[in-house]
Amino acid sequence: MIINNQDTICAISSPSGVGAIAIIRISGSNAFKIAKSISSIKDLLFADNKLVKFAKIYDATEIIDEVIIIFFKSPNSYTGDDLVEISCHGSSYIQERIVQLILREDARYAEPGEFTLRAFINGKMDLTQAEAVADLISSNSASSHKLAINQMRGGFSNEIAMLREELLNFSSLMELELDFGEEDVEFADRDKFNKLIEKIKIRITELIKSFELGNVIKKGIPVAIVGKPNVGKSTLLNAILNEERAIVSDIPGTTRDTIEDVLIIDGVSYRFIDTAGLRDSSDEIETKGIERTYDCINSASIILYVVDISVSKWEEIEATISDFKKHIINNQKIVLIANKTDMLVEAPKKIKNFLDIETIFISAKRKENISLIKDVLLSAISVSNVNDISIVTNIRHLDSLKNTLDSIDNIEKGISQQIPTDLLAIDIRKALHHLAEITGAVTTDEILSTIFGKFCIGK
Amino acid sequence: MIINNQDTICAISSPSGVGAIAIIRISGSNAFKIAKSISSIKDLLFADNKLVKFAKIYDATEIIDEVIIIFFKSPNSYTGDDLVEISCHGSSYIQERIVQLILREDARYAEPGEFTLRAFINGKMDLTQAEAVADLISSNSASSHKLAINQMRGGFSNEIAMLREELLNFSSLMELELDFGEEDVEFADRDKFNKLIEKIKIRITELIKSFELGNVIKKGIPVAIVGKPNVGKSTLLNAILNEERAIVSDIPGTTRDTIEDVLIIDGVSYRFIDTAGLRDSSDEIETKGIERTYDCINSASIILYVVDISVSKWEEIEATISDFKKHIINNQKIVLIANKTDMLVEAPKKIKNFLDIETIFISAKRKENISLIKDVLLSAISVSNVNDISIVTNIRHLDSLKNTLDSIDNIEKGISQQIPTDLLAIDIRKALHHLAEITGAVTTDEILSTIFGKFCIGK
Repeated sequence: MIINNQDTICAISSPSGVGAIAIIRISGSNAFKIAKSISSIKDLLFADNKLVKFAKIYDATEIIDEVIIIFFKSPNSYTGDDLVEISCHGSSYIQERIVQLILREDARYAEPGEFTLRAFINGKMDLTQAEAVADLISSNSASSHKLAINQMRGGFSNEIAMLREELLNFSSLMELELDFGEEDVEFADRDKFNKLIEKIKIRITELIKSFELGNVIKKGIPVAIVGKPNVGKSTLLNAILNEERAIVSDIPGTTRDTIEDVLIIDGVSYRFIDTAGLRDSSDEIETKGIERTYDCINSASIILYVVDISVSKWEEIEATISDFKKHIINNQKIVLIANKTDMLVEAPKKIKNFLDIETIFISAKRKENISLIKDVLLSAISVSNVNDISIVTNIRHLDSLKNTLDSIDNIEKGISQQIPTDLLAIDIRKALHHLAEITGAVTTDEILSTIFGKFCIGK
Repeated sequence: MIINNQDTICAISSPSGVGAIAIIRISGSNAFKIAKSISSIKDLLFADNKLVKFAKIYDATEIIDEVIIIFFKSPNSYTGDDLVEISCHGSSYIQERIVQLILREDARYAEPGEFTLRAFINGKMDLTQAEAVADLISSNSASSHKLAINQMRGGFSNEIAMLREELLNFSSLMELELDFGEEDVEFADRDKFNKLIEKIKIRITELIKSFELGNVIKKGIPVAIVGKPNVGKSTLLNAILNEERAIVSDIPGTTRDTIEDVLIIDGVSYRFIDTAGLRDSSDEIETKGIERTYDCINSASIILYVVDISVSKWEEIEATISDFKKHIINNQKIVLIANKTDMLVEAPKKIKNFLDIETIFISAKRKENISLIKDVLLSAISVSNVNDISIVTNIRHLDSLKNTLDSIDNIEKGISQQIPTDLLAIDIRKALHHLAEITGAVTTDEILSTIFGKFCIGK
């Protein structure tokens, strides 16, 4: 993508398909002229920066639609350009016709995210805020929504910008010292500088740590339901989904070609990972399959280990789980789900401190005690955590933060080793650069293309 | 549905799904109050009847979204009520949250078409115009769009209203005569009355006739491709579809459970009816199937009869088509498609006046002469016909027009038989009633429910 913010662009901004109303946007210096030339509107008399008009859209003498047009005068618009929003009847034919009329004038169809790219280029928002717009649109739960809104409203990027500002001051003073060459002056207070470096290091480390939480909130908390064949894994999953009467959707898995069930409980989304039944095998192909299963399980934040207590003895279960735990590398929470209580003659007994694993007795078939599992899922995370405005959710930010931390570490090392200021200055410049990448203070067309290419058309 | 235009209603008016922007509408006396209570907007200072504002949407202290809100003051709005349109970020989560916030206030979710129903009740449009809004939204070709726009802009309903007005004048004068009872006065000029009845009859008859055209334009012109098995019907259909590189969509058939291919050529949509291969049979079940096939063929406006000229002799073809024509009851246009010219050694010869049927030699396989078939389809109808603003497309209008015509016929008969004015007046009242049904000057909740129940939500 070649970044071009001179063209006038247009796109359908409402969801695709047929509806009562659709929105077509035009942004750029020709926007008002084009809107006038395709409509019955001849004069624009702005009382302030915005104007709403009823209008007819014409193709020569043929009436295409009766619409409402909103005019936003630059710079007081989403994009910062002159911006026009046409609310037309939502037939796909009309949407298409109006777009064609606009494209016949001096405008082109917008690239994905190009309206928001304009907003970034025109200084209406920084890069993290622009990225948050895409997150906001794809948010499907209270928690992912909150993360996106926080980020869109400035979130941690203001803080990053301020830290960078402070570091930049020191950097300038140090560069000044270098200008004086051999004179051995010290404009930059080294104590204050050390404290700043320490402060930045702590904050960046916190932000990097927050990514783990941010990422699972954004994508949904992965939950693995594991166990031998026929212990009732599918019945359990259905019981959980059913219990909640919640928004259950099938989303195509991003890394695998399978379908995952997503369930939203109290504003947090959980992705249920479908794992193949676990069984011992010496068959090479099957062993490969089991390895892959363990990889899946290890990507989960919570593991529900299901056993059939109507046929299994506790000693067996204990042995199996001990063995299972050897494969678990991330120290995730494992909950033992003792299923099929309905098949027992007497009430099940809780084995005290059994393997130090929380045990829940359920009957998936009768939907008994399913709410206890829900409580376990909820306890794993809390939306209230999300009130912290400084949760990093974006892998690009994470990369820049990690690079910043590397530079900061080098600066610290440099200070303790009392390296010359000119060498220190190199690492400071690197840190400044990586901090600037986050907010978009420095950027490249390539980075922008990657970011905005993921947007939907019309935003 | 109980018609209630006192409640404040709200709905998502943009197409369902995720997009850059979504539109949520609120209509009714509480609309402004609700918009203020869920947003950062505290004061509304109207310069004229419309107002655009940037705003934040809040749930208590939690920010849900940053939006643009347009306020339309009653009666200068689509519905005639106070109307609010919120442009929010198009995530389904945000759309849902904002709707929930609105419903928590004094509002309810709108029924399908309820915004347009309000517009009708508040006198913003008559019933045919309201119906045209639904047609406009579902229009998918230039011709169906033009029909809907014409009807929305008044179309024949203005004319109907004027004819009714004239008839009403006579009716009033006649009712006055009846008031004078035995005095044998004649306020209504019988000559002028006869002329009016004649005029109405001619116009109504034209409108009834126009329905056939209007209906096929609206639904797509049905084209049957028929012929014995293996003559190349599917290859031909694919060749036509491919030749056009047009908008091809699969729509579920309305009367059958099969799928029809729809092709739009030069702004007119054609529905290709999939017919089973024709063959003679004495088997009872198969005979039933063939009867059904002929029913399908008879529902088509154009029949493409495909033969394989590489194996068929002209005498056979002539005999087959003669037989075929016996089953065709509506005198539709039949075109003989002589397929598989690619299999012939010498160039095919056109048999002059063969059965008086137009013959096109093609090779569906090599896509030769397919454009000639397209020309035949195009000649069957022309979008320019649609410029006539008086094309009836709606079966409800057709019914009322037919009922009107019955009453008009009775009036004519009554006049020629010189029946007493009081009996004539009954038929005039009936005619007035049926004319009024069309524009909605008289209507019932039941009729309104049927009409608006077919709308999409949010319109």
